[in-house]
Order: sequence, then C-alpha cells, then structure tokens
Amino acid sequence: MGTAAVVGVGHTQFGQRSDMTLAELAWHAIKEALQDAGITQRDVDYVVTSNVGGWSSEPLPAILVNEYSGLGDVGVMRVEAACASGSAAIRAAYNAVASREAEIALAVGVEKMTESPTLQAVELLGRAGNFFWEFEQFGLTFPAYYALYATAYINQYGAKEEDLAAVAVKNHFYGSLNSLAHFQKKISIEDVMSSRYIAWPLKLYDCSPITDGAAAVVIASEDMARKLTDTPVWIRGIGVASDTSNLSRRQNFLGLASTVKAADEAYRKAGIDKTEAVRRLDLAEVHDCFTIAEILAYEDLGFVGRGEGYALAREGETYKGGLIPVNLDGGLKAKGHPIGATGVSMAVEAVKQLRQQNAKARQADIKNGYALTHNVGGTGHYAYVTIYSLNRPTQS
Amino acid sequence: MGTAAVVGVGHTQFGQRSDMTLAELAWHAIKEALQDAGITQRDVDYVVTSNVGGWSSEPLPAILVNEYSGLGDVGVMRVEAACASGSAAIRAAYNAVASREAEIALAVGVEKMTESPTLQAVELLGRAGNFFWEFEQFGLTFPAYYALYATAYINQYGAKEEDLAAVAVKNHFYGSLNSLAHFQKKISIEDVMSSRYIAWPLKLYDCSPITDGAAAVVIASEDMARKLTDTPVWIRGIGVASDTSNLSRRQNFLGLASTVKAADEAYRKAGIDKTEAVRRLDLAEVHDCFTIAEILAYEDLGFVGRGEGYALAREGETYKGGLIPVNLDGGLKAKGHPIGATGVSMAVEAVKQLRQQNAKARQADIKNGYALTHNVGGTGHYAYVTIYSLNRPTQS
Repeated sequence: MGTAAVVGVGHTQFGQRSDMTLAELAWHAIKEALQDAGITQRDVDYVVTSNVGGWSSEPLPAILVNEYSGLGDVGVMRVEAACASGSAAIRAAYNAVASREAEIALAVGVEKMTESPTLQAVELLGRAGNFFWEFEQFGLTFPAYYALYATAYINQYGAKEEDLAAVAVKNHFYGSLNSLAHFQKKISIEDVMSSRYIAWPLKLYDCSPITDGAAAVVIASEDMARKLTDTPVWIRGIGVASDTSNLSRRQNFLGLASTVKAADEAYRKAGIDKTEAVRRLDLAEVHDCFTIAEILAYEDLGFVGRGEGYALAREGETYKGGLIPVNLDGGLKAKGHPIGATGVSMAVEAVKQLRQQNAKARQADIKNGYALTHNVGGTGHYAYVTIYSLNRPTQS
Repeated sequence: MGTAAVVGVGHTQFGQRSDMTLAELAWHAIKEALQDAGITQRDVDYVVTSNVGGWSSEPLPAILVNEYSGLGDVGVMRVEAACASGSAAIRAAYNAVASREAEIALAVGVEKMTESPTLQAVELLGRAGNFFWEFEQFGLTFPAYYALYATAYINQYGAKEEDLAAVAVKNHFYGSLNSLAHFQKKISIEDVMSSRYIAWPLKLYDCSPITDGAAAVVIASEDMARKLTDTPVWIRGIGVASDTSNLSRRQNFLGLASTVKAADEAYRKAGIDKTEAVRRLDLAEVHDCFTIAEILAYEDLGFVGRGEGYALAREGETYKGGLIPVNLDGGLKAKGHPIGATGVSMAVEAVKQLRQQNAKARQADIKNGYALTHNVGGTGHYAYVTIYSLNRPTQS
C-alpha cells in the first residue's frame, strides 16, 4: 500500500438544488476543494467522477463536469458502485496516486436526483438490487430490501421500532447543527413513531431522503502533500467487498457480510485490531440509508457484538461523548443522500473532524487521530470502508 | 510507475448475441481469461467492470456479472468513459495492482447493445457528446460528429472518400480472417462507395456496427505474473486525456487533441521516442469507430505527419507487411464495437499478437515486442493510449 493524503475538501449545500445544474453543483464542490488545497485546476493530474445517473439526459457527466470546471484536457473517468460510488471514486483516485500515475488526483461525487419525478427516482432506486428477479418479479422497492433486514433483526434480537427511531433522532439532532444538511430540524422519537409506514417496520423517518449535492476531495502523494499542507489527512486503509446481486442468496439478514469483509481489510491495512477499533477511532461516518442500516453497521464494523447494536442506539452511545460518535454531520438520514456524492461527503466530514474544523457542538474530540467511513451500495452489494488518520503510515 | 503484466485474456464471439444475457456474455470472456491465466475465481482480488449501459433494465451490471461468474465477495466497481470505458477499466485494474491494493485484478468489458431498439441505440450514442446543446438543440447524431471531422480533413488536405473507404476495406479483410469478428466478409472500395450516406461524407460502410460482446483480461503483479506464466505481457505505459464536452469549443477538426496528449504520455512512460514509435511498434489497435477516425489516429499517434494519414490508407501501408499493421483483428469496423467491451478487446488482441497466437494470415511479425492500443470515448472526449510489451520495464 502506497502513501497518499487528502489535502483539500469541498462540499455543497445538500438539499433540493433546482438552482444549479449538475455541472454547477460539482464545480462548487471542486472549487472549494482546490482552494482548500491551495492549488488550481492546472495542478490536477487525474479526475475520478462519481455519479450514478439515470436521472439526467446527459450520459457523459464526467466530461461535462470537467469542461464546466475548467479542468482542461486532464484524464477522467466515471465510476459507479451504486450508493458506494463516492468511495469507489476515492479508492480509484487513491490508487492513481499510490501507483504514481498521478501526483494530485481529484475525486468528485455529484448527484441531482430531484430533477427526476419522485416515482421515477423510486423506481431507479428500486432497481439497485437485482432488477429482473427481485424488483420486477417480486415487486421489492428499495426500502423493502432493508425492511427484510429490519424484520429479521427485530425478530432475532428483540429490538423495538423505538430503537431504530433513536438513530433518526440522533442524526436529525446533528443535522440541525450542520448548515450544509438537507434537513436541519430536530425530531423526537414520537415524530418517528407517528410517521407513516413505507415498508414495515420502516417508517418515513427511518428513511434517508432524495437529495441533490456534490462533494470533492483532493488526494496527493506524500511529497506533494507535505508541500501543500501542515495537516495532511492520510488514507491509512481501504477495504472493499461485494455480495450477491440477489438477496435470496444471502446467508442471513442480520448484517451485511460485505461490510464485515471490507472492515476487516481496512483495519488490517491500517494496523488496527478490530476488537480495539471502537477505542482507536475518534469518530465514524456510517451508511445510514435507513435507520436499521446504521445499527447493522455498529455490529458489522465491530463496535459491539452481534445483537448489541440496537442498545447502542437506545442508550445514546453514538452521540458525541458516548462510546463512539457516529454521523456527527447528520448522516444520510438528515444531511441527505445524493447517492453519487455520499461517499465523498463522508470523506469530507472525516477530514474536517480530524482537522477539528466543525462547530463545537458537533466536533468530535480528537484523541487518537483516526476516523472511519463506511459506504454501502445497494443492500450491501458493494461495501467500502476507509480509515483516515492524522498519523502517517509507517512503511511496510 | 509500478510493474504489472497481463497474464490471461478472454474474448467472446462478437455480433448479435440474443443467445446470451449480459452476465452470460461476461462470464464467457472471464472464464476464458481465468483459464488462460491458470487461475480460478478465488485468486482474483479485485474486479473492474466496463459497461456503458442504458440499454438494459439492470442498473448494477458489475455485481450481476460478479454473482453470475462466481466471483464471490470480491471488491468490484463499474467504470465508464463512453466508448473508452474498456481502457479505463484496464487502467483502474492496473492501478490497483501497481499500488499493491491487489495482486491479481480482473478487467472485464461487456455490452449488449442489440437488445435495445436500433433507434434507441442511435439516440443513446448520439447523446455521447454534449446532450443539451449539440444533440438536442442542433440535432447532431454520433456519425454527424465524426462527419464534421471528415469534412474538415477532406477540405484541408484533399483526401478523397475513396481513401476513407480503403480503411473499411482493410479492416473487413482482417475481419474475414478473425472468427470472433461480427462481420467476416471482405468488401471492395466499390461496396463502400455505393453504400448509402449516413452523415455526409460518411457512408454506411464507413461506420462501425452496433454489436454485443465481452472481453476480459487478468492483470497481475510482477511476482505473481512470473509464477503464472512464461510470457507475461507487461503494461509499459498508459496515457489518458480528455477534451471538451462541446465540440464547438474544440480548436480544430483535423485531429483529436486528447489522443495526442494521451499518446505523448504513454510513449514517455514506455521510453519510446514518438518520432521512432512507428518503427518500434510491431502493431497498433486504433479506434476506428468511423473510417476517418482511423486516419486521424495515424497522425495523432505520430505514425505520420499531419495530412499524411490518408496516403497511408490509400497505399495499404497499414496492412501486415506495411509501415505498421493496424487493426489486424478487423477493428471496430468489422470486428464490431460493443462499446464497453471494445477497449478490453483491443488489449486481448495486443496480447495475442505479442504472444503470436493468431492465425498466420493476420499475425503481425513480432520483432521489437511492442504493441499499442488506442481507445477513444465520444468524439475524443476521453482518450486512452496503452503500450504493451514482452519486455519488462526497467525500474525508474
């Protein structure tokens, strides 16, 4: 594994952004990331664009963004791993730097989902599993996929719907402190419990919204990173894994096997013992597309044992000051989930937390200098776990 | 730049493949590549899937292919760079190996275009430029983009339509010798000249067809490559560049600036002087989506000077035995152009040529052990140039 660091981050307001085109949104994030890194477009050697698309008529978003952003004739490709596309872009940009193909690479994630009619968006998301069998033949929508997991989990461990609701309440609380979040409104357990069912036991407030937004990170080689900044945030380990297209072929619905595999790989690369991870990490960004997904992540990432995740939510142990702060930016649930941008947005948050640049109320205490991001595509079809650190990796 | 080699290749029959699903086509190519490398699915650390899509209802082709191919829980992402997606996949797989993220990576390209109604395919291809301005507002189709280049070239240098036709005749000749080609029928200059205009001066036989197919390559680290094979084909240099989304912002229509930039980078990395390239390379695979594109490539890649490309075609200098053999597999024109698979197919051909595994009539003489592939997305929106060699790179 080579050595590379994040040296610049940018992030747009998330929400319904009918005020900007896809290219404008991307440029807004790119400009901020370039400025943060103290570089210009000419310094970038390679661009990786994360965009799932399907909502727009423009089939070549990557080059559209490059032209609009004045990135000239630099090499660029688009990557897609469903809702984990943003993390796939970061890994591809990281690999380009670590293999010395680029000194400075830019990963940008952008999605404009609200320009598509809601029903079409729901259909496109529903296809993000196995279209032929599970969507078309059995009529599963995307919330219904995660509802299978929620049902199995509740049945196995005795969790209550209120425990899922606690995740939503926490993430809306932190969303209320994040000026870039889609929803900046605190909610109560009662609000969640009284919201309408989308796919039992998941209610409206258990679901992340349909959002527009963009985020960007600049990744540089060690030499370049040292020139550009005094606070490089090193990429210490990336784990990546996948799972079957068909949910009917999964072993069980009590966790995401792909998260477990990706986490094990990321911890190993970063030199972190999984059983120690919850104490080594100062914070985590996890993929809470639905509240149940955040609880499964607590267990899959090894923060607690099997069947113990819901108690973590119930007891408030993933607020700041608890066992491990999770989603201090509001998460997908309140910050919003513009699917191609989400993984990059997580990286931006991890970097800003490690640099201690957030408003105090949602700034984690940075003790060991480690942050983890966890990004899932589909229902665990793709999983990426990335560990960022203020501490440079030792040469292996 | 790290060291990595192709150790296995696979390729399906190209053509109208209504006999197979997308996943089946991909698996056919993957299976052959794994067997060629002497490995099984379990040995693969990472998969990159090239698929442009838009023709299929399945929005997550990468994981669909992984499940069908028994690739288990290995990490995978989809990449897209329009018709250069296949080369983008190879570069991403190469970077994963060169950065030591993977010991063995698989790049697979697959496209099923004929299941889409022809008019829809033509529309989807037409959008592969700038949808909003040039497709929708001005009504440019994809052949019309290249017709602008053909018109400018003919006007500037005095080339004749017959010179373009000579490219089609050559590529159909080699297609007739390639049992995997979509079209295996020789044609004459007269056949081309009497075919109907699609976008003046381009006629039906100046255009590559709408094709289904898949191709796969296995890329391994140096240590692993040495274990697996006595004839590793080293990736010696990859150049990548882009150009504006809007054709109206291009400098001129006499060449593709992105190809020039990508070629310069690839030659530099491979240690080849561009002025010597035509003598150092034993063969080239170039992106002949239209006949004019092959002629522009001769010049952009530095095989001849500006305005001299059409004479190369006219005089048969890109047949075997000429100045440099080009597209001995029939090219996009006769082999076919399943857009996500094309770049990977080029790599398969380069490797088989260097290993001297082709039927004698279309086998290049291998003297220096170098082959070049040139893959374009859109109308030069993306360009990838890759140099393969039997000679291991010296450490830099």
